[in-house]
Amino acid sequence: MQGLMMDYPLLIKGIMQHALRTFPEQEVVTRLVEGGIHRYTYADSYKRMCQAAHALQDMGVKKGDRVAVMGWNTHRQLELYYAISCIGAICHTINPRLGPENANYVINHAGDSVLFYDTTFQPLVEALAPGLKTVKKYIVLTDAANNPKSKIKAEAYEEMIAGKPEAFDWPDFDENTASAMCYTSGTTGKPKGVLYSHRSTVIQAMVTSLPTSFGAELSDVVLPVVPMFHVNAWNVPYSALMGGMKLVFPGPGLDGASLYELMEAEKVTYALGVPTVWLNLLNYIEGEGKTFSSLKYSLIGGSALPEKIIRGYDKHGVRCRQGWGMTEMSPTGTTNFEPVGFYDQPIDERIPYQLKQGKALPYVDMRIVSDEGKILPHDGSESGHLQVRGPSVLKAYYNHDKDILTPDGWFDTGDVATIDETGMLLITDRAKDVIKSGGEWISTIDIENAALSHEAVAQAAVIGMPHPKWDERPLLIVELVPGADADPQQILQFVKDQLSKISWPDDIQVVDEIPLGATGKVLKTKLREMFKDYVLPDLREGGGTTTSASAAVTEVEPDKKKSGFPFLRRKGK
Amino acid sequence: MQGLMMDYPLLIKGIMQHALRTFPEQEVVTRLVEGGIHRYTYADSYKRMCQAAHALQDMGVKKGDRVAVMGWNTHRQLELYYAISCIGAICHTINPRLGPENANYVINHAGDSVLFYDTTFQPLVEALAPGLKTVKKYIVLTDAANNPKSKIKAEAYEEMIAGKPEAFDWPDFDENTASAMCYTSGTTGKPKGVLYSHRSTVIQAMVTSLPTSFGAELSDVVLPVVPMFHVNAWNVPYSALMGGMKLVFPGPGLDGASLYELMEAEKVTYALGVPTVWLNLLNYIEGEGKTFSSLKYSLIGGSALPEKIIRGYDKHGVRCRQGWGMTEMSPTGTTNFEPVGFYDQPIDERIPYQLKQGKALPYVDMRIVSDEGKILPHDGSESGHLQVRGPSVLKAYYNHDKDILTPDGWFDTGDVATIDETGMLLITDRAKDVIKSGGEWISTIDIENAALSHEAVAQAAVIGMPHPKWDERPLLIVELVPGADADPQQILQFVKDQLSKISWPDDIQVVDEIPLGATGKVLKTKLREMFKDYVLPDLREGGGTTTSASAAVTEVEPDKKKSGFPFLRRKGK
Repeated sequence: MQGLMMDYPLLIKGIMQHALRTFPEQEVVTRLVEGGIHRYTYADSYKRMCQAAHALQDMGVKKGDRVAVMGWNTHRQLELYYAISCIGAICHTINPRLGPENANYVINHAGDSVLFYDTTFQPLVEALAPGLKTVKKYIVLTDAANNPKSKIKAEAYEEMIAGKPEAFDWPDFDENTASAMCYTSGTTGKPKGVLYSHRSTVIQAMVTSLPTSFGAELSDVVLPVVPMFHVNAWNVPYSALMGGMKLVFPGPGLDGASLYELMEAEKVTYALGVPTVWLNLLNYIEGEGKTFSSLKYSLIGGSALPEKIIRGYDKHGVRCRQGWGMTEMSPTGTTNFEPVGFYDQPIDERIPYQLKQGKALPYVDMRIVSDEGKILPHDGSESGHLQVRGPSVLKAYYNHDKDILTPDGWFDTGDVATIDETGMLLITDRAKDVIKSGGEWISTIDIENAALSHEAVAQAAVIGMPHPKWDERPLLIVELVPGADADPQQILQFVKDQLSKISWPDDIQVVDEIPLGATGKVLKTKLREMFKDYVLPDLREGGGTTTSASAAVTEVEPDKKKSGFPFLRRKGK
Repeated sequence: MQGLMMDYPLLIKGIMQHALRTFPEQEVVTRLVEGGIHRYTYADSYKRMCQAAHALQDMGVKKGDRVAVMGWNTHRQLELYYAISCIGAICHTINPRLGPENANYVINHAGDSVLFYDTTFQPLVEALAPGLKTVKKYIVLTDAANNPKSKIKAEAYEEMIAGKPEAFDWPDFDENTASAMCYTSGTTGKPKGVLYSHRSTVIQAMVTSLPTSFGAELSDVVLPVVPMFHVNAWNVPYSALMGGMKLVFPGPGLDGASLYELMEAEKVTYALGVPTVWLNLLNYIEGEGKTFSSLKYSLIGGSALPEKIIRGYDKHGVRCRQGWGMTEMSPTGTTNFEPVGFYDQPIDERIPYQLKQGKALPYVDMRIVSDEGKILPHDGSESGHLQVRGPSVLKAYYNHDKDILTPDGWFDTGDVATIDETGMLLITDRAKDVIKSGGEWISTIDIENAALSHEAVAQAAVIGMPHPKWDERPLLIVELVPGADADPQQILQFVKDQLSKISWPDDIQVVDEIPLGATGKVLKTKLREMFKDYVLPDLREGGGTTTSASAAVTEVEPDKKKSGFPFLRRKGK
């Protein structure tokens, strides 16, 4: 028997309309790409969403069309998020760090008809344009005065919306209609498109708004450092408007100094980003002898949260809450919200909890499975392949034949994890990164965290090296803090002191820069390539002595081609 | 184009499973009908939900079957809420205060096959049983030792579940499947059934869990005084488990002393109920010279929140948040969450805000419409018929032919209201209670609130009396606090001092008891019947003098037949 409730779809316009009717005077603040600060209200924003919707329709964008946006976190991208999705088109956010080849691929694969971009990315777009088969219109996210000369004919966004009506009759449609898409930058193969629906996005916005999820509330001033050009900035553009929070967009200013200045000026209380961002910001304030006057919470995800960040921010009264998810999950799967009374404990007792990835949100199911496909118990000890299920998890990639789910309908995340009796997730490894030594799994994350807790280590990565006796043994690779003059062997000993013997790295190597991928994660494939000729100490001729941390690496040229993007650069580099 | 996300239904079992996997050790505490306190964990509760599901299946309950529950708020009813809905059957909660005739009607109309009831209601069930055409099995919500002798053969709940397996393979089905039903006790005609779905219930649980809705969080200890036998206790049995909160069930102990004792013993921080309950509790603690050591918040709905309650609780450090909704809305439509910094203001500045019903939850649309069907602006001044829409609003009553929605698909609430530019709802009247005097609408709620703020007034109601010149004029009817010796004319003057002249009641009448309906609302139909021969002062022979507050009322016998139910009785009566 069916219930007798209204057939009312969960559309993204419901969030937009809720924000407008409930919090019309709430503020949205943006550090502009053009320089300076832009400030307006939800009510102002809504009017411009309506104008953008008219402009999109006027240029022929129809339901189901893909519209590309390559932009920093700004009020203009916020407007496009809603305007594009709520007319029934698909907001395809493009990560500029994908590199030209992949950017070309994803725009053509998606069949985008319009491309919006920030002026920062004009050189990239100019290089891409000749190869883009479906893009009919280019729009620069600025005003006429700041629209730079270009080889391509591009209208300014402000001109595009100027004079359009400030109201729009938003259509109704099935909640399973596609709303947005984002390509994953896999370590192998071409990027694959994840196609979100209105339903999946609204449900994700609701569950991440729960107190036991992100935990932000009306009094918070929220700054998403995590980019809107990737995984919808963890859905903050939706959840913040649903919760009526003041939103602060950093634009292109993602270095420590710019973020700090904006946080202080706008009294930011809650910020979200990947560990690299938090490390940079911490290095900045420690270097400058500053502290935070308003920041209370940071939500950290994208890769495992190092202990060093938790301890570093704790000194400044900032609480770090970890989350885990992936593009394929809309993206958040877990958050490690704190038990009641958690912060009454001393930090040493809190750390083991905070290093875990947290518990699944409602309507995210998780299980762990052995190599043989056996479902493993949630006992905090058995480790296996992490698989997920839920209304905000994908069932297929866009225009991609491969059947990606397990026969019983679960998505394999590629992570290896334990789950305990209270649902606490601990990612121990990426399946592809697994080091299996003498039949035991060694956690690369544990070793990396141990290394990162050394004051001279800026970035750390562990890869498995072939070994005739043990199959594989871990090699620790580190990048030092600028100006640090540390003895690699002392760092290695420091790491060993924190680990059980099986996890001791066989060697340490220092590199100028650990290569990071488009989303700030360490590119282990690249590292493996860099170290393909490296030989572990006990396998060398006359074996058993540890080399100095130079020989194997001096020829290696770290991948520098992405250095045009400031947000993953470290201060002083 | 459809999104490519999993087809994963929003089922109530998702809440149950989230509670189990995330908060297995959280507590549920119940004041038992048998006496004493019962205490267990979410994990214990889940095992018994599984056992109850097996028992229901074993007795032949199938998907779509209606199962009636007439019970106090207890852990056993919590188990039935989940077990019945999650096997695909329909949990039909029965309000014992409907009276025998209506109870008979709703059980037969729903076609319930099983009836669960607390021992308190055995006399009622014994009286009903001969007339119940579809009930095949009666189960008493107790154990064998406490199962009273009865004319009807009824198994004890504890016997029913004993020995059943503590795990259950919960089925999957369409999220629009009916999950629960509740009949509205309309003031006219037969009760009408509202049939909730899994989808409407889960969405309602999510939106009421938002910080700008009920505002309860993990650290709260939640006590729903609002009954589970009506409108699902405002969905608290769902939202509390989703949020992992400690739940405290009051069982039959709804008088001030019992509630207070339980709140103190269990450190309750958040309680929910109708104004009558809050008045009784306030009278109790003031009479006893007590105060609250843990209670911080009360969510109040069901009828307008009187100023006297806000001020009364404020003195004890308890914050009153108002909500509005109805059975037809699952039930919550609005909550008046506080703006940032609200409690930094003195109480006199807070009161006007707190007297309003609040702002719509996400995915609850509201509009106000004139008598002529014109949609009115949300300007805080134009008043009209309040209509609503959303995924948790009904589209039809159960087995009821009448088309109940407007031609464009909205549900008319029967309330008259204003909405301001920030979405703030103010209910000014029930459409059927409207007093239209000389072309102007007079708010009965304003007059009632003014009267309730007088220390001698326990309950107040205003009805419109016919008047040849003004069409209608308001008559104020009050019930005095037990033992109060107040002059009615002084009360009338006290009321007038707070109102504009058009709203001045033409007269005041004192009655022994203002009749209340099954859900604690004033029965104005009954009052109109009581006062059908009453004549306003200026229409009497030799008109113009105000009568004493006795003559018209002495013959009136207030409706006492519901006095067997303690929770709407006042202390000392």
